[in-house]
Amino acid sequence: MKEKRAIIVGAGLVGSLWAILLAKRGYEIDLYERRSDMRQHGYFGGRSINLAMSRRGWKAIERAGIKSIIEPHALPMKGRMIHSLEGDLAFQPYGKEGQAIYSVSRGGLNLELLKVAGEYPNVRLHFDQGCRKVDIETNTITFEHEQTGERHTAEAPLIFGTDGAFSSIRGSLMKTSRFDYAQQYLTHAYKELSIPPAAGGGFLMDKNALHIWPRHQFMLIALPNADGSFTCTLFLAFEGDPSFEQLKTDRDVEAFFERYFPDALSMMPTLLEDFRTNPTSSLVTVRCSPWQYEQRILLLGDAAHAIVPFYGQGMNAGFEDCTILDDLATAHQEDWDAVFTHFNRDRIKDGNAIADLALRNFVEMRDLVADPQFLLRKKIAGHLHQKYGDAFLPSYSMVSFSDTPYSVALKAADDQDKLLDHILQLEGIAEKWDRPEVDALFEAWRRR
Amino acid sequence: MKEKRAIIVGAGLVGSLWAILLAKRGYEIDLYERRSDMRQHGYFGGRSINLAMSRRGWKAIERAGIKSIIEPHALPMKGRMIHSLEGDLAFQPYGKEGQAIYSVSRGGLNLELLKVAGEYPNVRLHFDQGCRKVDIETNTITFEHEQTGERHTAEAPLIFGTDGAFSSIRGSLMKTSRFDYAQQYLTHAYKELSIPPAAGGGFLMDKNALHIWPRHQFMLIALPNADGSFTCTLFLAFEGDPSFEQLKTDRDVEAFFERYFPDALSMMPTLLEDFRTNPTSSLVTVRCSPWQYEQRILLLGDAAHAIVPFYGQGMNAGFEDCTILDDLATAHQEDWDAVFTHFNRDRIKDGNAIADLALRNFVEMRDLVADPQFLLRKKIAGHLHQKYGDAFLPSYSMVSFSDTPYSVALKAADDQDKLLDHILQLEGIAEKWDRPEVDALFEAWRRR
Repeated sequence: MKEKRAIIVGAGLVGSLWAILLAKRGYEIDLYERRSDMRQHGYFGGRSINLAMSRRGWKAIERAGIKSIIEPHALPMKGRMIHSLEGDLAFQPYGKEGQAIYSVSRGGLNLELLKVAGEYPNVRLHFDQGCRKVDIETNTITFEHEQTGERHTAEAPLIFGTDGAFSSIRGSLMKTSRFDYAQQYLTHAYKELSIPPAAGGGFLMDKNALHIWPRHQFMLIALPNADGSFTCTLFLAFEGDPSFEQLKTDRDVEAFFERYFPDALSMMPTLLEDFRTNPTSSLVTVRCSPWQYEQRILLLGDAAHAIVPFYGQGMNAGFEDCTILDDLATAHQEDWDAVFTHFNRDRIKDGNAIADLALRNFVEMRDLVADPQFLLRKKIAGHLHQKYGDAFLPSYSMVSFSDTPYSVALKAADDQDKLLDHILQLEGIAEKWDRPEVDALFEAWRRR
Repeated sequence: MKEKRAIIVGAGLVGSLWAILLAKRGYEIDLYERRSDMRQHGYFGGRSINLAMSRRGWKAIERAGIKSIIEPHALPMKGRMIHSLEGDLAFQPYGKEGQAIYSVSRGGLNLELLKVAGEYPNVRLHFDQGCRKVDIETNTITFEHEQTGERHTAEAPLIFGTDGAFSSIRGSLMKTSRFDYAQQYLTHAYKELSIPPAAGGGFLMDKNALHIWPRHQFMLIALPNADGSFTCTLFLAFEGDPSFEQLKTDRDVEAFFERYFPDALSMMPTLLEDFRTNPTSSLVTVRCSPWQYEQRILLLGDAAHAIVPFYGQGMNAGFEDCTILDDLATAHQEDWDAVFTHFNRDRIKDGNAIADLALRNFVEMRDLVADPQFLLRKKIAGHLHQKYGDAFLPSYSMVSFSDTPYSVALKAADDQDKLLDHILQLEGIAEKWDRPEVDALFEAWRRR
């Protein structure tokens, strides 16, 4: 058995959470972070999309024993609220009565996780420490203080790379033999914007929904915050028509919002300032394999599988990495050789599956949620679920309200689409879908 | 117009050839190479698969004006010679009478190209120079002498990265915004082996063929050299059954060759020594986009598109990069902004297409060439080509005997496969394929 010591590189959401779970096992942990200590300096917004915590996220939060700390910051969103060009609203529930995903501020959640991690006597936090060099043969990392430039090295039998989509630890693994890697950018960018609380306090829109303004090639979304505000995100192409490139002046921005998001514009007094101040950020999908090196170094979260934000699963997937790893540590009595081997063998396909699902959901959110044919498909799927229960559990529910492996949910989504394609070909299906032919098709599909 | 100066990083096949083409245009060129000067030190074998030069390669060689220098080193291979387990031989021509691909030694070709490049007064060759740092904003590169450790910097308005599959120049572009990148390894490895000349001189096997011992999950190939020897390559999985991992002792190797390649074994007196000495190398496909940065830095050859060797197109594709770039330079009067922009816009899809075709050809070579159904398909394809000419030009011919863009050849391969699928469903097709139904299917397909 290895010494009970570990280095975790990156104190973002996944690194902080994993530090807590590992601390509970009695490990001596050094948790390194490039940025300054947000417990002292606060956190900065401006380029973050609010998180949508669902089942997998909560499971990890419960495992860490901090549900009561996080819950007050989380606002339930029971469905999508679609804003038409004319300002009409249409609500599409995410799941059954009582099911919701939860809007959580990234910075706020990270701060709480860091506080909890910092309270463990066996966790040492190191801030302003940039990872400069990883010697993968000796498990030694060279860090450099971001302000003073001072360098020091650290070594441990276990290293966890939770340093995000542009991971340094992964950069070192990339130089090893036969490391598969892919990074792929969308042609779309995003920019954070905001809607303030109502003048007398409270919310300017329904606070229990994820608001979407789908405009086919682009969209605006808004997630509620506990203070009554909404964090908005505009997703739009970098170049082309329309695009961020075209929105050069205040007048361009105003005209664009007047034309496409008039109801939102009226609630966005700081639009022009937000638009100028906040960066235009790119959206990347990262896949790699293996996620581990010699049973001593392991990638988790975005470092292993960065995905686009359209399924609200980035954090949930990273947190699930931690609960699965924790389960494996229990099952294998902390024999990390076995834990890393199994995690690497079984989890990568799920990382790839949620990456695919997230890419597909962009099309669904920006385009299909405003399409009558898509809405009919969703209604029939809901009808089948109501009638047949878990024999037809929509993939959105599998992903958000269960911990079914992502790869199983992806397969189910494809299978269900085939059935729905058949059902949608029935004549007059738009008017009536509770009919024997539908049941017959379902039964044949179930027996397939 | 920019100054007529350029840096080329990497004096392999593509870098040396591009230096010649650019030197002809009167550019001052600094050509840097990490390895030592092979004109003085010779070149080392042991991990190279012989090249198969086809139309695209020759076109570039002609453009450089060095066909008469290269031709004596090139041996025509008119088709595949399939070696069955029982030692039976079957010849499958690559194209029409008079068409062939040419076996060329990588080291020999590189040496000739370097010699020619070095004769231009405006080309400066720098050996033992490792590329350590690329400042992409100032087009400045820091090189370090591999023996002395001495560093110096170089700058030019144009930088060409011809530094291969693990390109440093590409590594710098990877850090820029929105750079798509993928590297993917095969589960198979390769090892170079050899068959010597016959005792009294001459060849132990037919010298005008590419010899293949297809064994489904693995294969051995052999390409002729001018001295009467053959350079052989064993392609086999890293792990599993059978695999390189299993071939630990001399006895393992001998038993493996006795079982699967008995006729080859009898011609390989140095098998055990070759097997021990030569490395087991991995096979990678690299794709990226863009290939250029700010119209000042451009990737060519393997640095932009490393492919697996199974279509014999790696060097041909890199050389075609050079001729296309040279054509664009002429068309745009050396306005490199326009040249880089057009090359980047139009060529990447062809790099991806030949990567796909090369991956498919592995299955064809190791597996299908020994499959009666595949052979029937090839025969019918040959029949259609003979009868209808270029209206049915097999994709192998498009790739090897024409300069049709690779992406067009890939599309044609897919289209032709659909027609052949239909034809192969005709009853009794194996016995007779010159019949009206085949012509009817062809005509319908042609009008599609």
